[in-house]
Amino acid sequence: MTIRAYIFDAYGTLFDVHSVMEELEILFPEKGEAISQTWRRKQVEYFFLRQVMGRYKPFDQVTKDSLLYAINESGQSADESMLDHMLERYRQLKHYDEVEEVLKQLEGKELIVFSNGSENMIHPLMEFSGLNSLFTKTISADEIKQYKPSPAAYAYALEKAGVKREEVLFMSSNGWDISGAKSFGFNTAWINRNGLPTEELHLEPDAVYEDLSGILHW
Amino acid sequence: MTIRAYIFDAYGTLFDVHSVMEELEILFPEKGEAISQTWRRKQVEYFFLRQVMGRYKPFDQVTKDSLLYAINESGQSADESMLDHMLERYRQLKHYDEVEEVLKQLEGKELIVFSNGSENMIHPLMEFSGLNSLFTKTISADEIKQYKPSPAAYAYALEKAGVKREEVLFMSSNGWDISGAKSFGFNTAWINRNGLPTEELHLEPDAVYEDLSGILHW
Repeated sequence: MTIRAYIFDAYGTLFDVHSVMEELEILFPEKGEAISQTWRRKQVEYFFLRQVMGRYKPFDQVTKDSLLYAINESGQSADESMLDHMLERYRQLKHYDEVEEVLKQLEGKELIVFSNGSENMIHPLMEFSGLNSLFTKTISADEIKQYKPSPAAYAYALEKAGVKREEVLFMSSNGWDISGAKSFGFNTAWINRNGLPTEELHLEPDAVYEDLSGILHW
Repeated sequence: MTIRAYIFDAYGTLFDVHSVMEELEILFPEKGEAISQTWRRKQVEYFFLRQVMGRYKPFDQVTKDSLLYAINESGQSADESMLDHMLERYRQLKHYDEVEEVLKQLEGKELIVFSNGSENMIHPLMEFSGLNSLFTKTISADEIKQYKPSPAAYAYALEKAGVKREEVLFMSSNGWDISGAKSFGFNTAWINRNGLPTEELHLEPDAVYEDLSGILHW
């Protein structure tokens, strides 16, 4: 079946969430890496928990909450202005090296970003990165207040893409996101940037690549 | 309001999930701790993911899957018989030192275990531990195939307890479980065995204790 829509996850896939590490290291000497790792881990956990508990809060709130947890866990403390400052940095994450070139080679195709990021986070980031014009649209799960990997989230992206389920190629570096997309019925390419094992959820990705340039061989 | 039912989480709260570490260390020298930590982390993540994706599988399957992931992540490999062997050890976890004494002091009260563990895992464990006779009942989330922290899971435990929501004191060492129980409307005591920060989910526990003996002062 021909792929008619290429749907990309944003955080971890296009953008390096740990590109804030240097900034964290300046604020919290020798704790930057640990805080950055815990921040991301808890952010994702809080997506899941809020989804399971039926207590949706938007991405900016969850991202701030999980940062506060990470700072507390490292034995440090933070005030509101520092959290806001870091949230601002999250709107300026670096994209991975190969992203721009890969997108340019796919020019003319339906290229979509689909993210758990709320509009006030993902839109400024897309603008800042200079990648915006390479995509046909950016869809936020916040528009329906259902986080990935819930089936409702992927169903919404599919509706917005306006193609058939099996005409979608979905790309993410997040194992849980690939599992959710596969469970929903998308073709999936797992961008396994960290050389992790496949999730043991009996939902294998259709392809595994080390970085996004792999999808040019799909 | 008087507490009429004391509901205890099992894994992490009554039982030390890391008491399998020595056994893992024998099987995988110098990797035992890392595998044990990843095992538990992925087990819990898989509860969440399966709940969000609407793809329930019972606790024994998820526990086996997450162990395989943990072993793979550590660069080792495992066959089916080794996984089954470790699953058998999971039916013989050690309980924490103070548990028996605390339960004896609460004798005569409605003391309930409520676990994500499937019956083929939690019942043998309760038997093996010798704690079984100290509880009035053991409830498995598998009976309705809804994992904690979904509201449906706590609602089921409440129905089985046969008391009012505000008459329940729920105890867990797992921050996510305390958040879910609080979100549902139980009184909650977080048994914070590892000195972790409170989850930043805007659902504070009603009490925090270092171990279960704290609940005697509720």
